[in-house]
Amino acid sequence: MAPELSAQRVTLISLGVADLERSGAFYRSLGWQPAQELPEVTFYRLKGLMLGLIGKDALAADQGRPGATLGSGAIALAQNYGSRAEVDAAFAAAVAAGAAALKQPQKADWGGYSGCYADPDGHVWEVAHNPFWPLDADGYLAESDDR
Amino acid sequence: MAPELSAQRVTLISLGVADLERSGAFYRSLGWQPAQELPEVTFYRLKGLMLGLIGKDALAADQGRPGATLGSGAIALAQNYGSRAEVDAAFAAAVAAGAAALKQPQKADWGGYSGCYADPDGHVWEVAHNPFWPLDADGYLAESDDR
Repeated sequence: MAPELSAQRVTLISLGVADLERSGAFYRSLGWQPAQELPEVTFYRLKGLMLGLIGKDALAADQGRPGATLGSGAIALAQNYGSRAEVDAAFAAAVAAGAAALKQPQKADWGGYSGCYADPDGHVWEVAHNPFWPLDADGYLAESDDR
Repeated sequence: MAPELSAQRVTLISLGVADLERSGAFYRSLGWQPAQELPEVTFYRLKGLMLGLIGKDALAADQGRPGATLGSGAIALAQNYGSRAEVDAAFAAAVAAGAAALKQPQKADWGGYSGCYADPDGHVWEVAHNPFWPLDADGYLAESDDR
């Protein structure tokens, strides 16, 4: 076993979708701009990684389990914002774009403020303000933060 | 609708796990170092974002669906590497740490090289070499790349 060989990083998040057109329209209505659109996958550039929308069947095949039915998983992607007002605005924008509201933004017991919605395929997004996680100018977690 | 209000970014990836101890041991054996360990969540710092392991029940409750059974979802997280040999090494390290091999690293029809494994909760990780996605010194996607 070579513990150092598996890097502590993520460079691509692939979301399986039932209808690439529908999902692309959802993220477009949130203001997302694709970096590359291929017949079976749409890539969005984040900072140092990509988020890809890919047909569920293609994703299952890519994962070495062709024909598998992929459901809604035990995972959530989160966006942190600089204030509660920004969380409210992001949540409202997503619901206006057709997201399913799972949890209205509300005070969290960890000292922040958080809401959750699901995209057209049930992928869960959290929108949160965490006063303990300072953000840099790009909205990513500041490196100086120690948590 | 205010399209610009939902930022095109991810600042936290939460993986729901059945047994925080077991999952922490798995990622530890891959060489991952936690940034913060709380009773219900373990955070790992990536570049500009966190990856958190959190009990499935807590995750479901956080998402506004307490009691929901969260399965293995239509999503994959990927790590890109600089060569096929590094992909092979990362795959072998994960399997040695107890990961389930889903797809042995192999040539992909998109011109790269890719394998997939599942962590103890079935979360799918892809390890890949993509000659079209240059990496920076930290192993993240180089900003100069246009894909």
